[in-house]
Amino acid sequence: MTFLSATYTVTHKKMDVKYPKIPVAQSIVALCEAKKINHVVISPGSRNAPLTIGFTQNPHIRSYSIVDERCAAFFALGMAQQLQKPVALVCSSGSALLNYYPAIAEAYYSDIPLVVISADRPIERIDIGDGQTIRQKNVFENHILYSANLYSEVVLESSTTDKKIQQKTWESQKHNEREINLALNAAIEEKGPVHINVPFYEPLYEVVDEPTVNPLQILPETDPNILTEKNLQHYADLWNSAKRKIVLVGVNQPNSIEQKFLEKLAKDDSVLVFTETTSNLNHTDFFTRIDTIIGPIEQSDNAEEQFKELQPDILLTFGGMVVSKKIKAFLRNYQPKQHWHVDEKKAYNTYFCLNKHFETSANNFFSSFFPLLNAVRSNYRNKWISVKEKRQELHEKYLEQIPFSDFMVFETLLKKIPQDYLVHLSNSSTIRYAQLFKLDPSYKLFCNRGTSGIDGSTSTAVGAACVSEDPTVLLTGDLGFFYDSNALWNNYIPKNFRIVVVNNGGGGIFRILPGNKNTETFDKYFETIHELDAKSLCEMYSFEYGKATNMEEVETSLENFYREGEKPKLLEIFTPRKINDEVLLEYFRFMRG
Amino acid sequence: MTFLSATYTVTHKKMDVKYPKIPVAQSIVALCEAKKINHVVISPGSRNAPLTIGFTQNPHIRSYSIVDERCAAFFALGMAQQLQKPVALVCSSGSALLNYYPAIAEAYYSDIPLVVISADRPIERIDIGDGQTIRQKNVFENHILYSANLYSEVVLESSTTDKKIQQKTWESQKHNEREINLALNAAIEEKGPVHINVPFYEPLYEVVDEPTVNPLQILPETDPNILTEKNLQHYADLWNSAKRKIVLVGVNQPNSIEQKFLEKLAKDDSVLVFTETTSNLNHTDFFTRIDTIIGPIEQSDNAEEQFKELQPDILLTFGGMVVSKKIKAFLRNYQPKQHWHVDEKKAYNTYFCLNKHFETSANNFFSSFFPLLNAVRSNYRNKWISVKEKRQELHEKYLEQIPFSDFMVFETLLKKIPQDYLVHLSNSSTIRYAQLFKLDPSYKLFCNRGTSGIDGSTSTAVGAACVSEDPTVLLTGDLGFFYDSNALWNNYIPKNFRIVVVNNGGGGIFRILPGNKNTETFDKYFETIHELDAKSLCEMYSFEYGKATNMEEVETSLENFYREGEKPKLLEIFTPRKINDEVLLEYFRFMRG
Repeated sequence: MTFLSATYTVTHKKMDVKYPKIPVAQSIVALCEAKKINHVVISPGSRNAPLTIGFTQNPHIRSYSIVDERCAAFFALGMAQQLQKPVALVCSSGSALLNYYPAIAEAYYSDIPLVVISADRPIERIDIGDGQTIRQKNVFENHILYSANLYSEVVLESSTTDKKIQQKTWESQKHNEREINLALNAAIEEKGPVHINVPFYEPLYEVVDEPTVNPLQILPETDPNILTEKNLQHYADLWNSAKRKIVLVGVNQPNSIEQKFLEKLAKDDSVLVFTETTSNLNHTDFFTRIDTIIGPIEQSDNAEEQFKELQPDILLTFGGMVVSKKIKAFLRNYQPKQHWHVDEKKAYNTYFCLNKHFETSANNFFSSFFPLLNAVRSNYRNKWISVKEKRQELHEKYLEQIPFSDFMVFETLLKKIPQDYLVHLSNSSTIRYAQLFKLDPSYKLFCNRGTSGIDGSTSTAVGAACVSEDPTVLLTGDLGFFYDSNALWNNYIPKNFRIVVVNNGGGGIFRILPGNKNTETFDKYFETIHELDAKSLCEMYSFEYGKATNMEEVETSLENFYREGEKPKLLEIFTPRKINDEVLLEYFRFMRG
Repeated sequence: MTFLSATYTVTHKKMDVKYPKIPVAQSIVALCEAKKINHVVISPGSRNAPLTIGFTQNPHIRSYSIVDERCAAFFALGMAQQLQKPVALVCSSGSALLNYYPAIAEAYYSDIPLVVISADRPIERIDIGDGQTIRQKNVFENHILYSANLYSEVVLESSTTDKKIQQKTWESQKHNEREINLALNAAIEEKGPVHINVPFYEPLYEVVDEPTVNPLQILPETDPNILTEKNLQHYADLWNSAKRKIVLVGVNQPNSIEQKFLEKLAKDDSVLVFTETTSNLNHTDFFTRIDTIIGPIEQSDNAEEQFKELQPDILLTFGGMVVSKKIKAFLRNYQPKQHWHVDEKKAYNTYFCLNKHFETSANNFFSSFFPLLNAVRSNYRNKWISVKEKRQELHEKYLEQIPFSDFMVFETLLKKIPQDYLVHLSNSSTIRYAQLFKLDPSYKLFCNRGTSGIDGSTSTAVGAACVSEDPTVLLTGDLGFFYDSNALWNNYIPKNFRIVVVNNGGGGIFRILPGNKNTETFDKYFETIHELDAKSLCEMYSFEYGKATNMEEVETSLENFYREGEKPKLLEIFTPRKINDEVLLEYFRFMRG
């Protein structure tokens, strides 16, 4: 890494701004401001008072107050996901910090920048029996890009003339400034979570009128992001000689890939483009509903023959996590000769046959690679497009004959979302159902697929809604919704925020798995059935509540659901618990044709 | 460590019991049973199916199902706190596990045994882009007694004759058995949390009629727990020549100290026994309300003089964490010449003057130490007993003149709890108020003081209530109650469980601190004021709800509150947010006399 350096001077014109007296708190806030971190989510505490004062007084940074740290962290994650730049989190010492961990792991695997700043007690007060002290240093070691362990800074009295003490204090400040810079830069450059742990001595609440430090700013490396691949021609030759190529796209930010590249891929006779729901990529000739292609083959008598026809010579992947278990299983069993992954940061060996990691963005890769390509004669694309069309016919036939169920509800829900919505999908049933239906290309789709947890979907959606220009709807199952019910304890939920809870009375997804359904053990420990509804929570947190128990009520409810209202709205749809799994499993059998 | 070994054979007579097919799952369940771990809290998932099947089928182990892992872990903590033996936790792979962390840290610092068992994907599936996989190995490293990282066991087909594979499988099993034993023994011997991480291959749901393994049992070391101190006479000599000794007791299990020792301490003229609320120790001559002694001195004009008179020559401590900040500050500023701590496991240097750790139980220590002691002439005890009596008079006078407030409410609440109740106190205001009042000696008092978090007080109390023979009441503030609202999503709450929420509209405790009260920043980011009440949650989770907004309503509500009912009950008392801090601060001024 090379560093460009500059000293960052804080210059706020507003007369009434105060600064925390403790220099390291000033440095953290000033460096966040300098690096354009404009949002901070603060949870209450006393040890973090210098940070709370510093951030809330800063006119360039918007502060949010959230009590439950688990929700606070997912809320920040949702904001950072939309802003595509770091959001800061501030909490007190002790177990507060540990409640951030689920969201930190999600950020780590989803490449979302988060800056976790935890106040701590001075090191002499750890493990001596003081309250609210734990071992905060490196506590997220398994899932963090950088851990900055700062030194506590004693604010020297002006009468102090002891040179040694002055030198020590100065050295601590310089260490801290550098560590803060490195942590923030890691979050920005590598897109992920970082942790800054700051021990504070008392007094904590003192303020000064002018900043007393000018922290050195170390600029993040400006990534040239240019493909330096010398033998790209080698890969182009392989591509040009292959008649069957699959491009598979996982989680991907909306509007991030240039349209001309998409066109070129879609029109290549030797290429199938499989896009996941969260890829936010759309084209009539893409295969946007992977499981409707793979699932029915799995159920066929001649599955092996069909899979061999689908097996690619080259697999080119980009984007993040892939939801579809079916395509993972297919590609592991019918491996391509070549698997190349394009990503600036990392490449997972998901199919156990990764040959090449192109360390650049998809746009950069395509702009260098496409000029080297020739047209390849192949019937690969046409063959599978005809399969796709046939499946679509069967899909529509199937819909006509099924009873009221999750399957039917999701079909309608996904069709009735107004254009240009930000659509948040929870784990796991919701995102899996969403992969089966045609979605309007104007939707921007998101799901916490880093760890695929149910623990923070609602908080993430609320965070996204807070900073998005488009209105946001969350589609969620009941277990995930009740799990993250504290997400609604949030003063920033916009009026146009919408939640649809598909309440099938438990963890319906477990019914799809090979467990022994409808036994007492299954009901209690796998499906974990319950009789809760969301009505009380809506009263408590001022949501307009609606409910539906059949298709007619669903249709009627949706008519007004997206219209403007005085409050955010929640629609709860109760589906029959015991038939949902049968309808879904039968779907894949039916789709064989 | 020396190990006694034995092979543990599972012999269940019930005909319909099934066992998970995967041997390591059988071993875990069998060894938990062998080591008398009879309670397991399971959160839903698929990867943990072999464990869920194994535990729920075992007739000697009671299984509980809790969806939110954060609550599940605190619930298990509450059970283990009462049972004084390990409770197991079982969850699926991914972020599920991370939600356990706040309770694990609490268990670590409170010396409560918890056995965390996480299902994992096989090691080849970590960091390759598979769903619900994180780096679970050693993830709790900073706060765990033992991390057992097991190997995944492939269930060999009976046709497998490959000797190398058989040998490898056998070695994995033996490794796993030993690691499980070591983890469980650490939880039992050292009283704290341990983590067993178990990767499972699919299929997960298969069962067998008979166990296929007999895991080796390594017995925990039977701790002789006898004081081996050779020069105990040296300490007795110091004790016998000291005229001022303080015995200070932190968190301590009810009925754990022999009465004769307490009598002897209480009657010694040269000894003051300071006991915290959570010490569960009572004697007329003890100083049970530490802050009412120390607090008023802090406010006095001649504080230094009084503190010097109180300063002990010897400080003898036992028990866990100390709540009172006032006594910590006093003892750090007016250090004893000797500080000795008695505990089987650990000794914190809380007052920066620890001379000696007696590694044994308090009972063992006293039984060896007391025979060596002589009567010491001193007016230390009498002097401070007269101070205590004077304070009690002032305390009563003060109560007569104050308005409706947290102070007054807690006084009444604590007086009106029926005898023999298990009383759970939440952090932080509640436990601090409780330290100011005389409590009935029949109460058994608990508070999560390991990390002093607000994150799991309700879940802990529910867990305690589930296994306690005595009825349980939780006294809590509003922020802690709403934080842990998912605690009520629990099918095991006994009808006689009671909650009192003292709702002062925010984090009232922050008003006591030196922040700049009643500014917008303070209200929003420190006190985090809100207008929530607990009524909706009571409807949702079937609690009988009552509320009170003045003293008369409090008194009336309490008349029936502890009577038998059809449901558990919650009483919410609304106090005036802005005067609570003034009443408390004035109390310490008034008590100077």
